[in-house]
Amino acid sequence: MFSEVYKKNVLNKTYINGVDLFKEYLFLVQKAHLVMLNEENIIDLKCAKAIKNGLNIIIDEDDFPAEITDNTEDFYLYIENVLKGLIGDKYAGALHTARSRNDMDMTFFKMFLRDKLLNLLYFLNDIMSCILKRSKELKDKKIVLFTHGQPANISTFSHYLMAFAYDILENSNIIFESFKCLNKSPMGACAITTTGFNINRESISDYLGFYKPVYNSYNAIVSSHWMTYLVFGINNLLIDITRLMADMLHKASTEVGMLYFPDELVQISSIMPQKRNPVILEHIRIQAGLAIGMFKGVEDIFRNAPYQDINELADAPVKYFSDGYDYLISTLELLKEVFEKVDVVDNRCEDIAISTGTTTTELADFFVRKYEISFRQSHEIVSKFVKSNYDNSILRKEFNIIAGFDLKESDEDISNILSTDNFINVRDVLGGPSPYSMNNMFKDFENELKNNFNFIDEIDNKIKDGIDFLNMKYSNI
Amino acid sequence: MFSEVYKKNVLNKTYINGVDLFKEYLFLVQKAHLVMLNEENIIDLKCAKAIKNGLNIIIDEDDFPAEITDNTEDFYLYIENVLKGLIGDKYAGALHTARSRNDMDMTFFKMFLRDKLLNLLYFLNDIMSCILKRSKELKDKKIVLFTHGQPANISTFSHYLMAFAYDILENSNIIFESFKCLNKSPMGACAITTTGFNINRESISDYLGFYKPVYNSYNAIVSSHWMTYLVFGINNLLIDITRLMADMLHKASTEVGMLYFPDELVQISSIMPQKRNPVILEHIRIQAGLAIGMFKGVEDIFRNAPYQDINELADAPVKYFSDGYDYLISTLELLKEVFEKVDVVDNRCEDIAISTGTTTTELADFFVRKYEISFRQSHEIVSKFVKSNYDNSILRKEFNIIAGFDLKESDEDISNILSTDNFINVRDVLGGPSPYSMNNMFKDFENELKNNFNFIDEIDNKIKDGIDFLNMKYSNI
Amino acid sequence: MFSEVYKKNVLNKTYINGVDLFKEYLFLVQKAHLVMLNEENIIDLKCAKAIKNGLNIIIDEDDFPAEITDNTEDFYLYIENVLKGLIGDKYAGALHTARSRNDMDMTFFKMFLRDKLLNLLYFLNDIMSCILKRSKELKDKKIVLFTHGQPANISTFSHYLMAFAYDILENSNIIFESFKCLNKSPMGACAITTTGFNINRESISDYLGFYKPVYNSYNAIVSSHWMTYLVFGINNLLIDITRLMADMLHKASTEVGMLYFPDELVQISSIMPQKRNPVILEHIRIQAGLAIGMFKGVEDIFRNAPYQDINELADAPVKYFSDGYDYLISTLELLKEVFEKVDVVDNRCEDIAISTGTTTTELADFFVRKYEISFRQSHEIVSKFVKSNYDNSILRKEFNIIAGFDLKESDEDISNILSTDNFINVRDVLGGPSPYSMNNMFKDFENELKNNFNFIDEIDNKIKDGIDFLNMKYSNI
Amino acid sequence: MFSEVYKKNVLNKTYINGVDLFKEYLFLVQKAHLVMLNEENIIDLKCAKAIKNGLNIIIDEDDFPAEITDNTEDFYLYIENVLKGLIGDKYAGALHTARSRNDMDMTFFKMFLRDKLLNLLYFLNDIMSCILKRSKELKDKKIVLFTHGQPANISTFSHYLMAFAYDILENSNIIFESFKCLNKSPMGACAITTTGFNINRESISDYLGFYKPVYNSYNAIVSSHWMTYLVFGINNLLIDITRLMADMLHKASTEVGMLYFPDELVQISSIMPQKRNPVILEHIRIQAGLAIGMFKGVEDIFRNAPYQDINELADAPVKYFSDGYDYLISTLELLKEVFEKVDVVDNRCEDIAISTGTTTTELADFFVRKYEISFRQSHEIVSKFVKSNYDNSILRKEFNIIAGFDLKESDEDISNILSTDNFINVRDVLGGPSPYSMNNMFKDFENELKNNFNFIDEIDNKIKDGIDFLNMKYSNI
Repeated sequence: MFSEVYKKNVLNKTYINGVDLFKEYLFLVQKAHLVMLNEENIIDLKCAKAIKNGLNIIIDEDDFPAEITDNTEDFYLYIENVLKGLIGDKYAGALHTARSRNDMDMTFFKMFLRDKLLNLLYFLNDIMSCILKRSKELKDKKIVLFTHGQPANISTFSHYLMAFAYDILENSNIIFESFKCLNKSPMGACAITTTGFNINRESISDYLGFYKPVYNSYNAIVSSHWMTYLVFGINNLLIDITRLMADMLHKASTEVGMLYFPDELVQISSIMPQKRNPVILEHIRIQAGLAIGMFKGVEDIFRNAPYQDINELADAPVKYFSDGYDYLISTLELLKEVFEKVDVVDNRCEDIAISTGTTTTELADFFVRKYEISFRQSHEIVSKFVKSNYDNSILRKEFNIIAGFDLKESDEDISNILSTDNFINVRDVLGGPSPYSMNNMFKDFENELKNNFNFIDEIDNKIKDGIDFLNMKYSNI
Repeated sequence: MFSEVYKKNVLNKTYINGVDLFKEYLFLVQKAHLVMLNEENIIDLKCAKAIKNGLNIIIDEDDFPAEITDNTEDFYLYIENVLKGLIGDKYAGALHTARSRNDMDMTFFKMFLRDKLLNLLYFLNDIMSCILKRSKELKDKKIVLFTHGQPANISTFSHYLMAFAYDILENSNIIFESFKCLNKSPMGACAITTTGFNINRESISDYLGFYKPVYNSYNAIVSSHWMTYLVFGINNLLIDITRLMADMLHKASTEVGMLYFPDELVQISSIMPQKRNPVILEHIRIQAGLAIGMFKGVEDIFRNAPYQDINELADAPVKYFSDGYDYLISTLELLKEVFEKVDVVDNRCEDIAISTGTTTTELADFFVRKYEISFRQSHEIVSKFVKSNYDNSILRKEFNIIAGFDLKESDEDISNILSTDNFINVRDVLGGPSPYSMNNMFKDFENELKNNFNFIDEIDNKIKDGIDFLNMKYSNI
Repeated sequence: MFSEVYKKNVLNKTYINGVDLFKEYLFLVQKAHLVMLNEENIIDLKCAKAIKNGLNIIIDEDDFPAEITDNTEDFYLYIENVLKGLIGDKYAGALHTARSRNDMDMTFFKMFLRDKLLNLLYFLNDIMSCILKRSKELKDKKIVLFTHGQPANISTFSHYLMAFAYDILENSNIIFESFKCLNKSPMGACAITTTGFNINRESISDYLGFYKPVYNSYNAIVSSHWMTYLVFGINNLLIDITRLMADMLHKASTEVGMLYFPDELVQISSIMPQKRNPVILEHIRIQAGLAIGMFKGVEDIFRNAPYQDINELADAPVKYFSDGYDYLISTLELLKEVFEKVDVVDNRCEDIAISTGTTTTELADFFVRKYEISFRQSHEIVSKFVKSNYDNSILRKEFNIIAGFDLKESDEDISNILSTDNFINVRDVLGGPSPYSMNNMFKDFENELKNNFNFIDEIDNKIKDGIDFLNMKYSNI
Repeated sequence: MFSEVYKKNVLNKTYINGVDLFKEYLFLVQKAHLVMLNEENIIDLKCAKAIKNGLNIIIDEDDFPAEITDNTEDFYLYIENVLKGLIGDKYAGALHTARSRNDMDMTFFKMFLRDKLLNLLYFLNDIMSCILKRSKELKDKKIVLFTHGQPANISTFSHYLMAFAYDILENSNIIFESFKCLNKSPMGACAITTTGFNINRESISDYLGFYKPVYNSYNAIVSSHWMTYLVFGINNLLIDITRLMADMLHKASTEVGMLYFPDELVQISSIMPQKRNPVILEHIRIQAGLAIGMFKGVEDIFRNAPYQDINELADAPVKYFSDGYDYLISTLELLKEVFEKVDVVDNRCEDIAISTGTTTTELADFFVRKYEISFRQSHEIVSKFVKSNYDNSILRKEFNIIAGFDLKESDEDISNILSTDNFINVRDVLGGPSPYSMNNMFKDFENELKNNFNFIDEIDNKIKDGIDFLNMKYSNI
């Protein structure tokens, strides 16, 4: 009899995790192992059929105690006991030939996380598509961009949003790379060192939709990569999100006032109708922060943990990861809502541009390009113009002093050069905000997105095909 | 005049970082920008020649004040001032056309980190080669492997080492993926939104050996990926190392005593010559831990920092990263020393195997394979044998009870089945420790390693070729 | 109407937290504010009675929707609406005079955490008492102590356990200090800057059992200390626990074998009865690790979050803290179970002591003390004795060479000096393992523990008295 | 001969740390141990005098090799060797009686950190004094305070600054508590379990200025608290600073424009003189962030490190802590510079107050107080007034509808009630911004500050007195 304290705080939690999180994956592992054992003649057909019948009863009834029963260590052993009751010790025991709870656990933990990660990758694709769509819709909306918190350049909101889309893309790619490490089958590693039975590690890997077996069997049991690798791309994504929220809160603040959120996302004050708190941005920041904490928690438990089979590789951290994942998905749902519904306040960009002289650098550049004045000389002319509070006569005078001839542009020309539209339109090199550059950027990103989607879809299909094939083989036993 | 406190704690540090860390990369950026401006006819040949002459003087003299001079903000502006003194404001100013300190900084920070990362990738390749070599040398040395700190299986030290080699390989691959994000050129993004000048972002990217330009110009200036992505594979590697050290400390401990370190790596007690502390393992653990702290520090500064151009993307974090990198390299040098010099204590594996009955599971498996007894029945027989303290007559009796006939094996046969050699030899499926499986594993890993090296080398050559081409073009101005 | 995504991922979670975690504390805040408003004549008796009647109905019915209702922001506003329905807008509104959701939230969050922390402090006291009790019970059990993983000194298990008890004591003291920061009342800070109403911040603080009001009202709303301070002592405690587990795993390992755990805490192998995995130690390490992740998560969300009223100070982080607290309590329950049930394996200390010569340093010290030989000379004699594999004739010869006269001790004397008992008994200075020193240590610790308990109890009573007084005043309205 | 790699990456670094960081503290430990040994008659006067003479030569010459010499493990053993050369093995060896490198290392590491921490505590006191002084100077400067990034209340800059001062005070108090754990003497713990010599742990503790000995000798050697505890208050302080910087950056931004920094702290644009980047705030944020990384790094290395004497408790982490401390001090120097020089922009508070109607809540409160209208009714009146864009006739009309009589206040009265001055002046309860409340707050804080200073000074004096007494005793040998 286990100690009550131990049972409550360890064994029962493990059992509940088995029932709640891993059940369906455990049954697939059972099926795949059975099919392989039979194919390799490690167990005979009669035995295989008996096991299949027993398993089918358990799977179909799908009825498990709410709490762990006495003298049971975990959900798997509970299943094994039921199977013994149904088909007898001999047959039931045969299913555990050439495997161990070690390789089985690693395998169904990975399958559980694999589904979560695939789901995440699709969701990220969806968010990137959303940004792309919104960027096209909002492509004429201008905003001020800041450096070190100070107004610096004029651009479009689409240019800004697409910058973030490229960051998500990189995160998605890294998560995809991590996914590749996850998607290798530990089955056949048994406790640590494989087995003397003539098993086929490749076929069981295929049946469970894995890319290939983990090569070294000790590695299959002790490496923490399948869990910790996932953390990295995810936490980088989440930190990026906290950064975007800090910046959007600034752009949406009363004083800056460039972004608008509809009433359904805004909490208001009973007395001041003009006070519109887009606290959704703060909530995204916090939920992202809390998710980061849990993912880091997963990473950190491996510090100085022996490079052996250890309980850090067991269900408790996977459950914890899964709880962090819920925060992650909530964060992403809120983020997508923001992308769907945020809008740009008309004319606020112009107001700030005028009051802060943001476009005057473009006038200086214009002089350099047209009149072959040096960069620093041109800055000097424009600097005096700015100090004069945009007095065109001062501009003309200073230009003449430095250039040695009169400025040819009319007052209207100057006004056009200083316009926010001009600032954007002349920036049409690769990656700039001009309509031409943005169209190219949309195409580039569409292409990236399509590739990204295809990669994910291909893997997803391989998994589904493997499992379909397994189910077919299993029902044919 | 800047405040003395500000100058001491910010400006001077930035200046020193410029001189100590970034100088050579800054000069390459200057050259590449000059060549491109001239090629695109943004500045004429006369101007280009003047700038080249000025730059060459500065580069050749290579003489910079030990502390920042008054009214200078950073190393770049110091250089610009010297250039003005040498060739006049007009020409010197022209070099800053269509660029900004923002894109320049991002560019030479990336180039600095790129060299560090390439160096790291080569070093990891070197360590993996070392493990492979040692695994071949030590391939007959047997050790006990543990689960949850308890003796569990017999294997070879090579099987164990190669598990870790595969983990390094995955870390190396992820670092390589991160490297790809780093290896994109920000040049041409200017302050944020590119420029109205007709620059060529692709050619300057090529001259500096980058893979391609960062597409979106805002992304080029505000994304933290080029710094934070690097953290990710590195810290996973370091955590893996702390795990290996925890495990090797156990295997090398007085009581377990399976690993041997030569005197040159051992600190001894003045009184007890048998007390041999392999504290190098502890020092590796600590130095890895301190490196992790700094790399995490880099990652964490971006939490909630606005998605703008911010000083988190400036020299202080790069310097800090660089200090963490020194801990990393020291850790890896010590680790390689361990792989080079660790050895296995003869016969200790057998002693533990015998005293803990580690090989008895193999006897149970043997019965299942040869006599078609079920897995659980076989375990029952062997369990009684173990309880009898390995009394062969008990084994024969229990076998007969369950199997219904006499066990055919002689006492010598039983002894052979229970030998550690047999335990290893029968495990010859993919990834197992048998000589056959290990030979295949060596081939698989050699292949992986070769690909890994080729990828790194290819990138390294592209960088060198780009810069060679740049230097040629520059000298031809 | 709020967006469905926002409602699901933000508002409803907040509402559920209100019902599940904060309800009772919110009602106490309502009562205390009502009593104070009435006492200070800010609302009259008739109004106060009406509010009291309304509140009592809500509290008594204790029936709240399972999900947030439409157009409600949070649990508090739901309550306010019900109150309006019961007693009309005018009276219901009056209760919100001179307060804000800001100061109310901070207050009941603090009260919720205060109960958790008090509970923790009592639990730590309980664990320390358990260690003290076990140390007395096991006071004659000897163990080997290690430095850098190598056997180094002989001591008692009690001496070892008490070291950890002193570490818990320091952690408990720091948690207690943090608790003092938590235990100040924000009420009366209102939104940020207090109010123009003549409120009494001291009396409401007393009614809710706080030590005193947070002085500066902006500080009351924006400081994160009440949440982040708690993290520090707790995480230090948890890291200490991971350290103890790493060490106990070593001492309990098959090869060292000094600690024994009863069957109820051990998971066994079906085939090898001698394989007894004390995986409870690993589970404690992991659960501690996961708790650390969440507490660090709380700390980290404040990085770069504006020093304003922000949602990081809202219910989501408190709920998250509370989930981390569940891991903490589970960890501590398992830890206490270990202290209650761990035992020392007889004679294993002697075996290790003999095989590693651990007590020979004491022989060297003995020579120094008795014969005025220098420390280094004595070490030389004993070093040769050790190298001779403890040959007394060699010892006598070397002694004579250095001392110039014969060693007076008989072989039995030498044997006694080298005994583990002697090693322990001579170490009777402050803090050493001798019975005399340990008795003094027990007294010192008992005294510390009593003071610790008294401090906690005093605060607990002040809280209970404050709330009792409040309930009395409230029912007398 | 040690391996070259080991020597370079471990031994030499340790040696250099000895020379650079710990030398003076090691010599004090030598002196104190010598005085105690002699006083307790463990070594005789002749021997003590010889040792003293030898030590004095080493201390006076103060000349140590730049790199570690062959076959030396660390700085201490180097010193011991020199001492042997000077006074012979017998006397030199006697100094190491009844101690170990373990207790010596712990002791001088603690003394090194103790000086750093005392310095920090004085610096924090200095910064708090600076805030208090500036708060008095700026007490009439008004600012808008924000909740969730939206303008919410009017207050004074002093009220805001003092909130932060109270947070520093709590941090200072917690650092002081941690300091108490640091300030206990390990000497006499020897390797782990004290010694059989009749040493006096109390007197050596006194000579080195410690509060008292660490009681349990195992605790003295293995606890990490003396290092990790320090992290705790420091990192909370640093996170608070990042929060203040995020908020000040907002208040100093172009659009909000409430704070002014003099030219000496501002980096400007060559073209736009109005663009004034107070990037010092960003640099403080970053340097704080980098310091946090290192302090966390110290904390994290202890995760799962055995509860034994381990190298995590050695010089490398102390050196690392010391490097983090340099970032901390740089951060604090910059922070103090900000407090010294920041100013408030005149009238900007009024502009924002008017444009956002921030003071209208006070009008609502006024009606409640004067006319016994309920809180919610009053809000209704004022809400319509706000929607009318502050039309007094609408206000009067709505007031009459709800109150049933005419509003008595003149238009001027209304204007006064809505003034920012009135908003502040009526808030004169404890902790509010009114001049009366602020005067009381200054007194409260002055008192706290004085106590804080006295506590620090008392400890500092105890340390100095202990060491003076030691030096006197030592020179009298």
